[in-house]
Parts: sequence; C-alpha cells; structure tokens
Amino acid sequence: MNEESFVRKLTALFPQSPDVAVGPGDDCAVLDLGTPDLILAAVDQVISEVHYTKDTSPEAIAGKLLKRNISDIASMGGVPTHVLLSLAVNPMDENWLLAFHQGIANLAAQYGISVIGGDMAKLFTPGQALSLTILGKVERGKLCLRANAGEGDLLYATGCFGSSFRSGHHLTFTPRLKEARFLAGDFTCAMQDVSDGLLKDAVRMAEASGLALQLDPDSVPRREGASEDSALTEGEDYELLFAVPQRLRSRLESAWPFPDTPLSCIGRFVSGTPGAVSGLKSNQLKTGYDHFR
Amino acid sequence: MNEESFVRKLTALFPQSPDVAVGPGDDCAVLDLGTPDLILAAVDQVISEVHYTKDTSPEAIAGKLLKRNISDIASMGGVPTHVLLSLAVNPMDENWLLAFHQGIANLAAQYGISVIGGDMAKLFTPGQALSLTILGKVERGKLCLRANAGEGDLLYATGCFGSSFRSGHHLTFTPRLKEARFLAGDFTCAMQDVSDGLLKDAVRMAEASGLALQLDPDSVPRREGASEDSALTEGEDYELLFAVPQRLRSRLESAWPFPDTPLSCIGRFVSGTPGAVSGLKSNQLKTGYDHFR
Repeated sequence: MNEESFVRKLTALFPQSPDVAVGPGDDCAVLDLGTPDLILAAVDQVISEVHYTKDTSPEAIAGKLLKRNISDIASMGGVPTHVLLSLAVNPMDENWLLAFHQGIANLAAQYGISVIGGDMAKLFTPGQALSLTILGKVERGKLCLRANAGEGDLLYATGCFGSSFRSGHHLTFTPRLKEARFLAGDFTCAMQDVSDGLLKDAVRMAEASGLALQLDPDSVPRREGASEDSALTEGEDYELLFAVPQRLRSRLESAWPFPDTPLSCIGRFVSGTPGAVSGLKSNQLKTGYDHFR
Repeated sequence: MNEESFVRKLTALFPQSPDVAVGPGDDCAVLDLGTPDLILAAVDQVISEVHYTKDTSPEAIAGKLLKRNISDIASMGGVPTHVLLSLAVNPMDENWLLAFHQGIANLAAQYGISVIGGDMAKLFTPGQALSLTILGKVERGKLCLRANAGEGDLLYATGCFGSSFRSGHHLTFTPRLKEARFLAGDFTCAMQDVSDGLLKDAVRMAEASGLALQLDPDSVPRREGASEDSALTEGEDYELLFAVPQRLRSRLESAWPFPDTPLSCIGRFVSGTPGAVSGLKSNQLKTGYDHFR
C-alpha cells in the first residue's frame, strides 16, 4: 500500500466532532470554537539522520522544526500563535538543549509566537526525534484549503524548487507567511505548501479538488544547480502552491508586492480524473517523497 | 543542574502573549480565547525501551500515550476534546501502525475525543518515539492549578501508589477524569496528576503554591506488593493529588461517589519554605523520577 492510501485508511478510523471544520488531510486541522477567527492546529517533526545531518547546529534544527510548522499555518492563510514542543533526545545534553530552545525562542519572538508547553524525554539510543505542535488562527474569509481549487483556475507557485537538501535551503528557508497572508482570501482560497515535492503536493491539491492538472514543468523555477526532476519531486521547498481564478491573473501579477519572491504560473486545473496530471515528460513519473518507501 | 532548575531556565526563555492564562509549568497550558470555556493544551510522549518494553502491544502503547495525556487534562479540571499524533517509527510496519491507530481510535471514541491530525516519519533506528498533543476545555470556575493550594489545606490523593511498571498499571490504568470533574471547582482548585512520583509531584504543588508540606507517608495507599519507597517515588501512577480546604473535608468524604476509587488524606499544606517536606523518614529523600539522571 502506498502512503496516500494508507493514510486515508488511518484517517477513516477517526470520526470528527461538530467543532472540527476540517479534520486530517490538509496542512492543518481547522477548529470552529465560535470565536471570530477559526483555530488552526498542526504537528510536524524533524528526526536526526532523516531531516538533518549530524553536523547541523541545534539552532538550525530548531529553526527548521518551527519554520516548517509556520509554513503549514501560512498555507491555510493563517498566522501562527502558540506552539508546544515534544523532544526525545539522547544524550540529554544541557548545552545542546539550551541552544535548541534558544533557537526556538529567537524565532518564536520574531513571529509573535508563544511557546506554551512541552515535554522532554530520553531517547533509547543516541539521536533526536523532535516534534512541534503549532496552533494558529485565520479569519473565516481567508481560510485556504487544498480542496478549494476551481475548474480553470491557474496553479501558481512562489519561489524556486529543487536541491533543497544539498543547497541548505531546507534549513535556511523563510516560511512564506507574508506572501500567504497577502494572497489568502483576496487572490486564492486554495493553497498548500510544498514539503513532499511539488508534483506530489500539486497532485494532492488537484485530487482534493476533484480536478485534473495540466502542469507546465518548464515554467517551474529551479534553484541554482537543481535538475528539473529535483525541482518536481525532491521536496522540502516550503514554497506555496495556490490556485488563482483566471480573472484575477493580471491583478495578482501587477499587485505582487514581494520583489524578492518569484511568482510563477506553472499550470492549470481542468476537469478530468481527480489528481491526474498531464504535461509531464515521460521520465517524470516519480511523484515525490513517499514516507513508506 | 537538576531537571527542575533546568526546565525553569528553559521556560524563562519564552515570554507569553496576553491570551496565555497559564504558560509552561503546569500539567497543561491554559488559553483564554474569549470563549466561555478556557482551552487546555498539553503534549506528552512514550518512547520504546523507556516507557514500555519490546513485548508491549501497539494497542497498549496507544492506550498509555492517550491516557497519560487525558490524565493531564483531568488534573486541570477539564475534559479532553481533540488530539494530534506525531509518530517517529522504524520500521514503518503497516500492521503495527494500523493496530496502534485502532487503539487510539477506540479509546478516543470512548472519551469523545477527535483525532484531528498527525505526522508519521521514519526513525533512524528500530524503535519508536510517539508523541501526542491534547487539547481540552474547562469551565472558568473549574480550572485547577498546582499553584492554588492554600495554607492549611489538606492534601488528598486518589487510588494506590507504587509498582506501576512491574504491575502493568502504567498500561492498564484509567485516567481519573470523572473523579477530577467531580472535584474541580466544588472541592478543589489545586490539583495535579502523579506521573513522576508522588513525592516529587506533591513537592511541585507545594512549591508552586508557596507552601511547605507535612506528609504522612503511612497514609499513602500502596498497590499490592509495593514498598513505601516505591509508592512515594516510582511514578507512573496517574492518580490525582489535590488540595481540599479543611472545612470541606467531611462533605467530600461523605459525598465521594466512586466506591472503587480510594480517597485518602495524605498530608497538609502549611506555611514554611516553599516545597519543603516534613514527615518523611530519614531514608525517604529520593524525590521521584529525574529525566536528567
């Protein structure tokens, strides 16, 4: 069984209470607690030897962990508010832990995030498994879901793709929070971030929206030195994918206020088999990182 | 540096926004989002070879992980509402994962909890690091904090203590949710659960409340076969400790509606050095599980 179908099988085990506006399957869960804003919640982890190498500094690890969670909040159109940390580490080295927490604190302060709780425990073997739960909020009119792409909408992406691990981008990236806030509600209501690979994540959006996708691989901007294959499938780009109605295209492109963030139209959602992709070259059939491979 | 002082040092790194009613340091963080009820949030984990042995079933592991988090919500006087899972596992065995998730689902359904999200990733070595974030809610008049014990209050405990690991109690326990809901607001506003050892957790409550504690070790009910030392220090009991004003003592003991849950008065909060304990025998100086030992 591949990851997608296995996760669907697991998700089917979990009925949702009425205050859950969006359950598992998007970048964040969405809770409607009766407040003016909706509440967002997500969890993501980084693991030694998987998400970073042994020579990565605790500050850089902390940064990656927090920023990839901020990216999940951004992709829903929201802003991050609170986080909880769950750390399994060995050894429980006080210098390492202090530097890690200082890295979280510095970045949390930048984004106005409160670190409200956590747990630390000893891992059974040297290494780390580090998890962070993030809460956020989003105005009801700004909520973006992967399932909201419409037929004929254009698929846009921020930034460049590929070679994230080799270039160090996976540690140094800035989550596209201000770009997402600019877009949400006014230009898009269908957005997600790219963590598992552009192609895989774009297919998820198309599938969730019940649409097929015409992709134009040549229009995907690549990071320096990145192959086309890497740009489409390697992942860890932490860029935004979002659907824009055709009528808003010229308004978006002329209003885009982030000269340092590339904005690219890379495809179009069309009617067809949900999640089917056309436009790929014959050798582009890999669809990103599968956690079960 | 011991765990307590190191955690205090880390906590000092994190300023809290105005909507955080209670930040790190209690069983849960408390958020005031302007809704009638306050929001509770906590995270806790279980790790293979640390919190369970290799022969533990995935359902039992799932149960321990969810129940110890429910115990944290109970100790604040609240009810659990939503959880997110973060699993680092190796191998990513589908049968194991399915059984684990089924265990979570069965128990979540019993407690009316929605599993709203999660993340799964491969650990770098065989074993598991499993984390669960829980959200809950509590009426403003029922919120219980460790810092709320008053001078002269009696220290009560539910249940029996000691030998939790050897007896299997650490897997089979029932979180004291209904007992906590009965107590909160009406009989106590100072409560916590015992995870790291009765003595250590009682000291935390006394210290947070700025009081000393007269403990009566002989009145602590012990699990079958448990030594007095084990009852005071081993932990993983998942029982409630709570402070009751003297004037409510007889009313509490006559109204206690849980014949299967022992209710014991085991001490008293008094003025003195915050966190100082009297009443211990000379050999009872260990104060529970220190994650840094």
